[in-house]
Formats: sequence, C-alpha cells, structure tokens
Amino acid sequence: MRADVTRYALPDPGDVSGLKEAIDAGRVNPREIVAVIGKTHGNGLVNDYTRGYLTLSLALLIGGATGETPEAVRARIPFIFSGGVEGVLSPHYSVFTVSSEDVPADGRPSLAVGVAFTPDFKPADIGRQRQIDWTAEAVRQAMQSAGIERVEDVHFVQVKGPAFTLSDIKDGQVAGEAALTDNPGKLMGHGRAASAVGVGKALGEIASDKAVESTVLNDFSVFSSVASCSAGVEVRGNEVIVLGVSDKWTGPLTVSHASMADALDVSGVHVALEGMGLVAEPQVTTADAGRIRAAFIKCEAARDGRIRGKGHTMLNDGDIDQQRHIRAAVGAIVASIVNDTALFVSGGAEHQGPDGGGMIAIVAEKA
Amino acid sequence: MRADVTRYALPDPGDVSGLKEAIDAGRVNPREIVAVIGKTHGNGLVNDYTRGYLTLSLALLIGGATGETPEAVRARIPFIFSGGVEGVLSPHYSVFTVSSEDVPADGRPSLAVGVAFTPDFKPADIGRQRQIDWTAEAVRQAMQSAGIERVEDVHFVQVKGPAFTLSDIKDGQVAGEAALTDNPGKLMGHGRAASAVGVGKALGEIASDKAVESTVLNDFSVFSSVASCSAGVEVRGNEVIVLGVSDKWTGPLTVSHASMADALDVSGVHVALEGMGLVAEPQVTTADAGRIRAAFIKCEAARDGRIRGKGHTMLNDGDIDQQRHIRAAVGAIVASIVNDTALFVSGGAEHQGPDGGGMIAIVAEKA
Amino acid sequence: MRADVTRYALPDPGDVSGLKEAIDAGRVNPREIVAVIGKTHGNGLVNDYTRGYLTLSLALLIGGATGETPEAVRARIPFIFSGGVEGVLSPHYSVFTVSSEDVPADGRPSLAVGVAFTPDFKPADIGRQRQIDWTAEAVRQAMQSAGIERVEDVHFVQVKGPAFTLSDIKDGQVAGEAALTDNPGKLMGHGRAASAVGVGKALGEIASDKAVESTVLNDFSVFSSVASCSAGVEVRGNEVIVLGVSDKWTGPLTVSHASMADALDVSGVHVALEGMGLVAEPQVTTADAGRIRAAFIKCEAARDGRIRGKGHTMLNDGDIDQQRHIRAAVGAIVASIVNDTALFVSGGAEHQGPDGGGMIAIVAEKA
Amino acid sequence: MRADVTRYALPDPGDVSGLKEAIDAGRVNPREIVAVIGKTHGNGLVNDYTRGYLTLSLALLIGGATGETPEAVRARIPFIFSGGVEGVLSPHYSVFTVSSEDVPADGRPSLAVGVAFTPDFKPADIGRQRQIDWTAEAVRQAMQSAGIERVEDVHFVQVKGPAFTLSDIKDGQVAGEAALTDNPGKLMGHGRAASAVGVGKALGEIASDKAVESTVLNDFSVFSSVASCSAGVEVRGNEVIVLGVSDKWTGPLTVSHASMADALDVSGVHVALEGMGLVAEPQVTTADAGRIRAAFIKCEAARDGRIRGKGHTMLNDGDIDQQRHIRAAVGAIVASIVNDTALFVSGGAEHQGPDGGGMIAIVAEKA
Repeated sequence: MRADVTRYALPDPGDVSGLKEAIDAGRVNPREIVAVIGKTHGNGLVNDYTRGYLTLSLALLIGGATGETPEAVRARIPFIFSGGVEGVLSPHYSVFTVSSEDVPADGRPSLAVGVAFTPDFKPADIGRQRQIDWTAEAVRQAMQSAGIERVEDVHFVQVKGPAFTLSDIKDGQVAGEAALTDNPGKLMGHGRAASAVGVGKALGEIASDKAVESTVLNDFSVFSSVASCSAGVEVRGNEVIVLGVSDKWTGPLTVSHASMADALDVSGVHVALEGMGLVAEPQVTTADAGRIRAAFIKCEAARDGRIRGKGHTMLNDGDIDQQRHIRAAVGAIVASIVNDTALFVSGGAEHQGPDGGGMIAIVAEKA
Repeated sequence: MRADVTRYALPDPGDVSGLKEAIDAGRVNPREIVAVIGKTHGNGLVNDYTRGYLTLSLALLIGGATGETPEAVRARIPFIFSGGVEGVLSPHYSVFTVSSEDVPADGRPSLAVGVAFTPDFKPADIGRQRQIDWTAEAVRQAMQSAGIERVEDVHFVQVKGPAFTLSDIKDGQVAGEAALTDNPGKLMGHGRAASAVGVGKALGEIASDKAVESTVLNDFSVFSSVASCSAGVEVRGNEVIVLGVSDKWTGPLTVSHASMADALDVSGVHVALEGMGLVAEPQVTTADAGRIRAAFIKCEAARDGRIRGKGHTMLNDGDIDQQRHIRAAVGAIVASIVNDTALFVSGGAEHQGPDGGGMIAIVAEKA
Repeated sequence: MRADVTRYALPDPGDVSGLKEAIDAGRVNPREIVAVIGKTHGNGLVNDYTRGYLTLSLALLIGGATGETPEAVRARIPFIFSGGVEGVLSPHYSVFTVSSEDVPADGRPSLAVGVAFTPDFKPADIGRQRQIDWTAEAVRQAMQSAGIERVEDVHFVQVKGPAFTLSDIKDGQVAGEAALTDNPGKLMGHGRAASAVGVGKALGEIASDKAVESTVLNDFSVFSSVASCSAGVEVRGNEVIVLGVSDKWTGPLTVSHASMADALDVSGVHVALEGMGLVAEPQVTTADAGRIRAAFIKCEAARDGRIRGKGHTMLNDGDIDQQRHIRAAVGAIVASIVNDTALFVSGGAEHQGPDGGGMIAIVAEKA
Repeated sequence: MRADVTRYALPDPGDVSGLKEAIDAGRVNPREIVAVIGKTHGNGLVNDYTRGYLTLSLALLIGGATGETPEAVRARIPFIFSGGVEGVLSPHYSVFTVSSEDVPADGRPSLAVGVAFTPDFKPADIGRQRQIDWTAEAVRQAMQSAGIERVEDVHFVQVKGPAFTLSDIKDGQVAGEAALTDNPGKLMGHGRAASAVGVGKALGEIASDKAVESTVLNDFSVFSSVASCSAGVEVRGNEVIVLGVSDKWTGPLTVSHASMADALDVSGVHVALEGMGLVAEPQVTTADAGRIRAAFIKCEAARDGRIRGKGHTMLNDGDIDQQRHIRAAVGAIVASIVNDTALFVSGGAEHQGPDGGGMIAIVAEKA
C-alpha cells in the first residue's frame, strides 16, 4: 500500500479546478482517493455552508471522473472540512490517495491511512456515551483498515461529526429525545469533546472509566494527544480518518505529531518538525517548506481567560467568536514557523491536547 | 533627563486601577507622565469608543492626582490608544515618564522621549499635504523636546490622528470643504498614510518631492521605517510621540526597531530583539521577557491578496475587518517570539514599513 | 410631585453636550434628575463598554453641576443603558426628573417615577433565588418611593443588573461560589430572567410558588408584562426604575404599555399608543410623534426558530448575535409605527412579555 | 402564455427538497422554469458563497429532472440570489414558471415574465458605460421576450451582476484594465448602481444624457423606480428578469410596485398592496397574506447618516455591514405589514428608488 497527499488551493468553495486538473492530467487517480481534509472560507460555526458546498463540488467532480453518483462518493470518502481561514491562513484542501500497486516497502515506516464511519447520530446522542463509544469503534476500524497495529504508530485522528441547527434540535425535543443543550453552537462543542474522548479511549490514552459521558466538557485533564475533532451540519455520523506510520506501507511520506501546552507553546511545533527531520531556525526554509504536504492544528482559547498570566478577551467577545480569534492567532504562529499558510487549523480543542493548548500533526516527505 | 516606561493591565477601559496604585504607592509621579500608549478592547475602527473611554479615565485619574483639570491633562499628555486585542493579545497601557532629576548619564545611550501636537485638522485636511507637513513639523518639535539630534537615533514615532464620523464628514461637505472620501473607515486610512509620510519626511527617509499628497495611498514603495500611525474619533489634531536614544539621557531603558517585510517575516522581530541584547531560540525566556517594557508593531493585510504566494481572504471578508484579522495574526506571531501578549499591535500600516509588511519597535531594560 | 422626561441625542458615548446645554440653560435642574435610560453605540453584549463610558460622562457632568462626586451621583441616580442601535435606531438618552415644587394636581393621573437599588450581587447570585427576591424587594421600594399603591398603575419596570466577565466568574469559582455558567453572555441571560421573575413577583403577576429559581429560563409561560431587564458590566447590583401613573403626581406626562405576542405583533404597539390617545394609521404623524417622550421595547428571537411558521436564522448565526438581529428588526417595526427612531430597544426578553414576543411602554404628553 | 410563481423554504443552501417534491409530484414542470429569485443564509457581501451553493444545488436538481447538464440549466435560467436573512427574514426561493399551453386570456392583465443575459463583464467594465448599455439592451430583450410593449407595464426588473474578488481585480490590473476600485465590496456597489442606471435608461425613466458613467454613484437624484440590482461572485454577466403585466398573458397572478422615500416610508408598502387589492390595517390578515406569492424590496442606509432628522450609526459600524443593518430593519418593517417573513430584501439601493429609500414590488394572486 502506498499513500500520497496532494494539496490544492481553494479560490472559492465551488472551485475545485485544482483537483480537476490533477485528475485530468493523470496525476491523481480518482478511484484512489480515500479522504479529503480542508479549510474553507466560512466562519467555522453553525451557519457555515462553505463546508457543504465544497463537499458537493468535490463529490460531483470525483463522481464525474469515476462514474459514481455523488451520493456513492460521499458514502465512500470522508470529506472533512473546517471553516475559517482567519488572518494569514489560506483556503485549501488536501487529498489523500492510497494505491495498492505492488511496490516493495523501502524498510522505512511510511504514511498509512485508514478511514471509517459511525452510523448516524441524533441530536440527543451528541456529547453522550453513544458518541464516545461509536467513535472509539470507528477509530479501531480505521486503524485496522490502515493496517496499523500499535497505537503509538497513530499520529493523527481526524473526526468530523454532525452539527445540528436549532430546527433539528427542536425536532428531537418534540420526539422526546432532548439534546444536551438547545444552543446549536454549544452542541457542536459537546460533539467535538465526546468524539475526542472516543479517540482517546480507542488508543488507550484515556482509561475506560474516564472515557465516560461525565468527563465530557468537565474534566479537561483528560485528553487525546492525536485527536482533532470538528463538527458541521453537512454530516450526520462521525467520519474518522486515521493517519499513522507502518512498515507495511511504502511511499514518500511520513507523519509526526506533538502537543501544544498553550497558545504560545512553539516547542510543540518544533518537536513535530523534528519528527520529520525538519528544522526552523527560526523558520523552515522555503526549500524545506516544499517538503511539507499538510499540517493539522487544534487550538482553543484558554478557559481561564489568561495566557501565561495575562488576560485575553476571546471569551468575552460578542463580535467575533472565540474560535475565530484563536484560529487566527495559533494559525499565524504555526505559519510563521513552518513557512506555510495552507494549514488546517481548527478551533475548539476540547479534550484534544492539553487544556488551553492543543496539538499539531505534520505530513511531510521523508528526509 | 531620565525616561521610564511602566505597563499596566487594562481589565476594562474604565479600570485604571493599575496606574492608580502605582501613583498612590509613589512609584509613578503623575507630573512626570509625558505620554501613554495602549491597546483597548474595541474593534479599532470608527465606532470604537474604548479609546475615548480610557482617555477620559486616565485624564481624570492623573488630573485628580496633580490637581490639573482633565482638559489640561489631555492638552499636555498624548494618550494614544489603538483598539483591538484580537487573538492572544492582552489589553494594557504603557505609561511614559520623564524625570529631570540630575542623574549623571552612565555613558550608554538611554531611552529619550519627546512629544508634540499639531493644530486641529478638519476632515478635508486628512490625507492631504497639510497633514503631511504639520506632522513632519511636529516630529521635528518632538525630537527637539527629546534632545535627539540625529535622525538615526529615532527608533519609533507614534502618531495618533483624528478619525471623523460620517456626520463630521457631511458637515465639512456642507461647509464647502470636502474630505477625500465620505467613507469614515477609509478616511482613517488616508490619515494614517499621510501621517506616516510626514514622519518619513521629517526623518529624511522620504525625499521632499515624494512626501506629497499624490504619494499617499498610491506609491507604497515609499515608507517610513519607524512610523506607527493610528486614528480615532477622540482626537482632532495629530499627537506625536518620538522614542529614540541619546547620550544625554539616563535611565534603565533603551529602544530598537526593525522592519517586517511581510506578515511572516519573523527576522524583523529577531533583529529588534538583538538590538536589545535579547535572543529568542525560538522564544524569549520568561526571565528575559521580564526585561521587555513595551513593544509596538504595525502590520497590514497584503494588498495583492497573497502571502508568500498563497491567497489570503482578509480583504474579501464582510464579517471581520481586515485590520482585525492581521492584528490577530501578526500579534500572535510576535507574542510567540517575545513571550509576551501585552503588545501594541496596530493594523493599517500604509507607508509604515514595507508594503504588505510593517515594523516593530521594542523598549527594554538595557542588557 | 411632578415628573418630566427629556431626551437627548448621543453622537458619541462621551458626548453629553445635549444635557449640558439643558442644564446650562436652566431647563433641567441637575438635582432633580432621578434616573437616566438610554441606548448606546456598543454591541449590547459582554464586551460593550459604551454603557460604562456614558455612565462616567453623565456622572461627571451632573456632579460638576451639583457639586457631588461622580461616585455620589452614581449611588443616587440609576443609569440604565442598553447597547446596540442596530438598523434605524438612534443613540440617545432619556433623563427623568422629579420636582417636588408644590404644583396642584390636575385631577388626571400623571407619570410617577420611583427608583431603588439592591445590594451588590456576586456571580453566583445571578439567576438564582437571591436575585429574584432582592429584585422584588427593590421594586416594592421603588413603588413606595413613587407613591404608587396599586400594582395595576405600574406600566414599566426597568432593571439593570450586573454582567460579569470571564475573569469575575473564574474568581467566584476559586472562592467556592460557582456561577450558573462560565459563559459570560449566557450568565447575562440568567440575570435578566431572574430579575424579570422578581418584578413579576413584586407586582403579583407571578405567584410566589412560580417565582422561584427553577422557573428561570425554564418555564417561559411565566412572565411579567411590564418588566424590562438588561445587564452590563458597569453595575454590581440591580438598579430599578418604576414608571407608573398616580393621582398624587402632576405634570404633562403619562405612560402606557402593552405586550407583544411575537416579533410581528404590531397590535401591541397600537394598543400602547391608544393608551396615550395616539393613533397610527398606519404611522403616527410627525406632529403627534412630537408628543412622545420615550418608548421602551423588549424583544427576543423566538426560541423555536420560527416566526409565524417560517424559519428565522437568528439563533444559528455565528457572525451576528441574536440580540442584534432582533433589536434591528423589532426596533424598526416600532419606529415605522411611532415615527421615531430614538427608541430604547433591548433584546433578551426572557420572562419579559410572552415567549417569543416582548413588551412596549411609551411615555408621552397627555392628550 | 401563463406565468406562475411558487415559493419554497430553504432550510440550508444545499437543501432544495421543496422544489424537488413539487417536481416529483408534478406540480412544477422543470422545463417551464424560467427564473429563480431567492434569499440565502450568507452575509450578502463578497465572501458570501451561499448564493453559489444554492445555484449549484438547483442546477443539479433541475438538470437531473430535465436531462440537461447543470451548465445548460445555468445558461438558460437566471438564478438570482441575495444573501442575508437578517432579523425576522426567512431564507427561501421563488420559482418562476411560464407555460405556453393555449389558455384563453381572461381579459384582465396577468403577470408576464421575461429574461435576458448580457455578455460577461470584466472587472474594468463594472460601474462603467458598458455595463449601463449592455444592461439596458438586456432589459429591452427581456421585455420583448415577455411580450410587454409599454414601459409602464413593467413593475420590477431584477438584475444580478458579477462581483469580483480581490484576486480577480488584481488580475485585471495586471492585464492593464484597472477596475474603478480595488475594494471588492465597493466594486459591488458600482455594479449595482450602473445596472440600475441601465434599467432606467431602457425604461425611459432616465434620459440618455443622464444614463452615463458620471451619474453612477454620483447623482442620486437619478433613479429607476423598478430596478433591483444585486451582485455576486457566482455570475460573470448581468442576468435580467423583467416582471410586468400584459393582456396577452393569463394565469392567477399580477404584480405591482411602489417607491419608498426613506427607510420608514410605509406608505410605499401600502401603495404596492393596494395595487393588488390588498389592505393592511395595520397588517395584512393571515388569509390575505396567503395570496402573496413573492415580495421584492430594495433599501439602503441613508447616506447623510440621518433618518427623519435623527442620526443612525449604520455607516460608522465596523462590526456589522451597513447592508445587513438596513435589510434587518426594512425587511422587518415590510414583514410586519404584509404578515410574511419570506421576503426578498436586498441592500444597496443605489439609483434603485429615491436616495435613502428604495422600492417594493409584490407578486400576488389577483383579487
């Protein structure tokens, strides 16, 4: 098995000409696409429709190339998009392909990719045990499909779960199945959090007795160091992508990750780079930056309202959502180190890395 | 002459208890305050009233301590506040004091501070030759009051000029004196730009034949490397603060500066730190960060919509103003290097540093 | 006793020249001012500092005219400001004066005004029984101070209670007194709601067994028809203003009110106008509009996401807060009927009028 | 010829199930669809992608039903969507169908519909004579296709023209064809304005010597009373829909229109209703509201910053765009009169109705 990742600029959520050209030129085989992860132009909150727009655009493109219906494409390929390209960030999407051509392994661990889907959730499931457990099960399936046996070989688990609008939530209430909150934005947070706990449970980072509903959005000492979870109205179940390394895989790429202890913890970025044999003194050179294929960052506004002892205002702001603030900030910090603005930066890092911090994973060409 | 700078957290634009305690405890002599520069909670745009609120609060505090009227305090002390503490930034204000006690100079250049005011401007003056020339004259006066003779000893010139609301602009039109635009936010840009050209003219960075109205917002190859200009409805003339170094001054502090070529140009930050004998590998240590008394950054969203070849979305955004985006981004980058979030970061860097970039100045204790 | 209400434009939260001129000209006796209610330029959410700025500006102005300290003025006069002049709304403040000059009553009920203050609340009190009960007690005190004996003579009760920033809330947690939520904006909602329940309790609109903590933000069939509650970081206790009619009072003014069943329920506006002998067919004439001295409106985005069967998007919006949406909408509707844009329109009508609707009170010259 | 208009709720820009059900049930013949006009969830500014998303979704649906490619559908049917459902407004789309079945006319004028397209524009054409003239020509073509001979029988002309992102504008500059401004949002205004002047030229409302480039955004005494123009990145030429009445057409519907002199001018709404035999005293009854099939409103924030003598803040606001403010306000006013929130309300009424006001057109079942 051989994994590859190619990244395309996204001038508009409906403009997938980058991938189209690659398919037309034979550089990407559309049947080998197993996942797409990207950053779109919206606000990344409930009323962000750019994620759904890109999903539809890509499903049409890929289906047109393979002969599948858009629905079949969406059932086969997780499309995980996070809205919000605040500050210097650049909208883009990264296409993961897996070819099974019989290439001999080179003896070095290579990027391995696996995907899985949970069944659909109802609003009342979000943030609850069912979401934890089904997510954990999907992570195990994705690891298996990737042929990754050891949990320490997993470096990144991306989960996209459902968001529900007020209307969905009200319908659930009427049906006698109340969601944890009727605030759509807040319910997204419950969903990210429970999904992260599910990832941690599957990977043994979170003990079973902690991987329970009462931990969610409550005990922030509990976290997964590789989970990255987002939510959007365009999906109904959790879609899971596992990235790791495996001797059984071949190809030019590898992946590493690190935790970030707080929003200013640049050491995590340097550790993740070092894992790929890259250095930033203080910035990755343009030449080396060309080796980076994708980077994934989770971050959050510190809940106690302080960063290294000084107050921040993100959680009091009624004009700009806290997630937009922190994505702009941490996205820029990472961009300034890795010398690349096409980063997947996602806010809302509940149980995804240390409290008030987050995590980073980088896919790059091997040194 | 001996300059000092102390910095206070600002929990609320009306809460100046930090300076009050310092005055009450005798640590700051209110008669020695010559300037205050700070970041407040607002949006930094036309409808940002947090600047005026803090100005009033400080004028009352200082006047209460010295026996001056608030009006007299405001006529004597430039209060230069920039709204917008996006991302990790922390609201704060830096108080500049000058004591004339007869301290022998230590033979090393020390921080020197000078201030000056232009007469009031009308909306029709903004962005025009009058604003350029009056600003240049005020910079010369401020240098003189600081006893700085050489332009290369000037490291930072902060200018706060007037912003006008639509109502002011319309009144001017009726009076037969049309402003350059009836868009209040855009007129703020003209004002920052003309002020910067005035600073460059005074310091010889911009030749007289370039320091003209037609350069303003037109020829972005023309810039001052030390100007930092903002605008707000709470002032009517340009208030000018010059920071430099001088052998005639004494005290614990010095100042350095550098240009930033683009939003990701961290080399400028490192150069400015090195100017103070500080290093960031990759981040200033907590101990060394304690030596930093204030840092001033100008930045802007690249006008061509690209940063190092990749598209950004800041100039197409109808939800969040471009200045808020870039302050969040560049503010976080600098914070991650200097290990401090109480930074003065101001957007709108027209003619203030290279096009698409900006500048940074740092005041710190001598090594 | 004789009550009067005068209204002033607010070009800037720091510009109280309207009242200054009235005081200087002898039209307003500053010692007779008993309350000020107004709409300011901010967002009306936690990080709205325009309310505090106007409060400080007015306290300085009035104190300067009476010889009181600003603190004494604030302890005597409730300043109740709501941020957010969305859409056509015009920033302004209404000054309530009471003179005790011995004017014979004219036999017709006249506007009566009473004020009272609760002790300070801690974050943990907000939304809880203490806030309900203290508010009810303050309403009774304000009625007594106004000499209003019958609850049916009360037409408007404005309450301004505290908002707390994240920092305040965290301090309370550390002290072992957890607030109902650590979301500052949400806590404002709890405070408005409990205050409204307190008003309803005092006036007998809400039975004692319903005027309990468990009703707050839970049973929206329970409401006061005259309560209007807002919250802001600039106060620490609840400030209460009661407007009603009394035979014991004299003066040119009277007051009426009505409920609004939903955002489009214009019948409530017409009922309130009719109570003053005013008609709108379909709009109050310019001449009659001159009789209106102040109007107060509470409104909210329907919690079920629908208005008369059609979906609205206010509760899914991550860019503009729901309160800003609904103020813009209902404020414009009322403005289009009463032919006046200087309206006090406040969002967040929890238990203030029917669920999904709100209330309106108008002060006008007698017919 | 027989025109019909049906309106569908839009829960999500990608959810066109309303029209799908109507097509599946045979209530709408997809080959008879000649235009779709709707309001989507976005901000209505440059970075609003909900318009493009709905366009794609509808093109897929209709093409799937007719066998056309999505591209062919888009070339045949103007899809004119305006983003921004502020306040009480409800997202929806109105589908215009024309059947040529040989129904005898009933002797009463009926709704007539015509459409036309201009060639594509470049950024440098926007706001210029070419856009005026090509739009005028397209209006004449649309009238002809509708069989409307007299300009006084035209009641509504909807134009959707292109918006360009910064990147598009810069590309044009490089090609030596500079746009009127490099501010994408401002260029949208130039485009709406020139299109409106073109409509007025075609209908004889604007004399040829006034229908020139120098009038655009300059002489606001010049306007069309039936033009409604919007702009979006999802089109490249102007798409024109003309609604009028004609004896040659049959069917259940008719159309009327009126100007609004300012944001509070409800008389215009009543005039338009009266044109259909509808009354609002003060609100259209629920039964009568069922006769309304669609309503189209243009509005704008008064350029002088005042509404009936009192200041508004819409043009000074850096948090919420002026168009979002005025749509929320005027949309709510109209909704409160016509008892319907599924209104097409579009901001930016440059030369579309009187300065500071706008226009309204209503399509309803004949009395």
